[in-house]
Amino acid sequence: MEIRLQENERIDDLELNGLKIIQNKEYFCFGIDAVLIANFASEIRKNSTVMDLGTGTGIIPLILSAKINCKKIIGIEIQEEVFNIAKRNIKLNKLDNLIDVVNSNIKELLSTFKKESIDSIITNPPYKEVGTGVINETENKLISRHEVKADLEDFISISSALLKDKGSIYMVHKPERLVDILCLMRKYKLEPKILRYVFSNKNSEPTLILVKAVKNANSFLKVEKNLYIYNEDGEYTDELLGIYGKEREK
Amino acid sequence: MEIRLQENERIDDLELNGLKIIQNKEYFCFGIDAVLIANFASEIRKNSTVMDLGTGTGIIPLILSAKINCKKIIGIEIQEEVFNIAKRNIKLNKLDNLIDVVNSNIKELLSTFKKESIDSIITNPPYKEVGTGVINETENKLISRHEVKADLEDFISISSALLKDKGSIYMVHKPERLVDILCLMRKYKLEPKILRYVFSNKNSEPTLILVKAVKNANSFLKVEKNLYIYNEDGEYTDELLGIYGKEREK
Repeated sequence: MEIRLQENERIDDLELNGLKIIQNKEYFCFGIDAVLIANFASEIRKNSTVMDLGTGTGIIPLILSAKINCKKIIGIEIQEEVFNIAKRNIKLNKLDNLIDVVNSNIKELLSTFKKESIDSIITNPPYKEVGTGVINETENKLISRHEVKADLEDFISISSALLKDKGSIYMVHKPERLVDILCLMRKYKLEPKILRYVFSNKNSEPTLILVKAVKNANSFLKVEKNLYIYNEDGEYTDELLGIYGKEREK
Repeated sequence: MEIRLQENERIDDLELNGLKIIQNKEYFCFGIDAVLIANFASEIRKNSTVMDLGTGTGIIPLILSAKINCKKIIGIEIQEEVFNIAKRNIKLNKLDNLIDVVNSNIKELLSTFKKESIDSIITNPPYKEVGTGVINETENKLISRHEVKADLEDFISISSALLKDKGSIYMVHKPERLVDILCLMRKYKLEPKILRYVFSNKNSEPTLILVKAVKNANSFLKVEKNLYIYNEDGEYTDELLGIYGKEREK
């Protein structure tokens, strides 16, 4: 099958089940965040219908396809140019039967998908509120990083409406939004059950949070062991190498 | 001055500014939690009026007296027997001018203290909801550990009413109640600003959380570096020794 690359595009090898991914350096390229949240969600039961809100070029569905046996993974992407890359990524990896991508604002999903029809939702949403952070970037990157088209409350309220009773949501975000995330989740009956912090190293402040919430569950939060990216020698930790499916070089 | 010890009482040396504390082994004795929250709150501005909700035998006011120059520290204790020990502790340490203790249920404070009259509140409240955890303990310990007489929402709503605009609250609690704490604080306009986790060691799950919230502040949470109690050799970390005002023995 012929895959045509367009200007500024490149193909990266995910080094996971032979998966490859097209990215465009003018748009947002995936980072460790997507890898960590896909791994955090790899407990999702087989035969689940999973949705990725804000899928970008489809990185999370691609990783999940290698980690769990889903029935269907649906990636939602608002930006048409990025959605088009995601579609080509599905084809490139011959995953058309497993992964669908939909070009939509998440706010319109309830007119397309039935309420309470999804088993699990994963999301790596824009981290920044409108009006905060660097804004002199391309419109594409702005939409990926800032809550321009949908804000945190949209992501959480729509997830709640789409999830089945006891369905789960997995979110990666920044620690400074923790209060917003936990309170909005509870407001929409998505009870936070597991919280994990990601640290660059043992002595740093946390850089990311991973949150799992379950619809209509009882309240009891488990704060898991920290996830460290680098050890004291500045090398990746064993856990991180394991997540990337690699072994330490001797 | 003569201090009479009653049955089951002992005097401990706090090894801090010569402070001593009477405790009764039949009641709840203070733990590292009180020491950590007093230290976490040691940024409180001088000349502040500070209140400690659930002061027990007065441990937090005693430590604060050594760490900051408050105008007044008011300890509130519901249990009369424990309140009586706190009163004797204030006398024992000649701190009558600085520290008041009041025998009251926190729910009745608004009939005694003016709204918006306190600069900072510190609290090490009961950790467990009624009906959870071990309950075959003495009534005194039960009241200290379980939300028998006042629950988390009482502690937070009353704190909010007592605090001045931009006044601060410092709370130590268990990680599993994080969602409850953050959402209730926001509900009562106490915006969580600083969150710090306490770990036994680098590889454990967190055992305690320290939360600072500010009344009517903007939302932005800073998750601080972790506080570790033990290092990899099983000894106290330098930070913990510093909090206890000790140096490592060579």
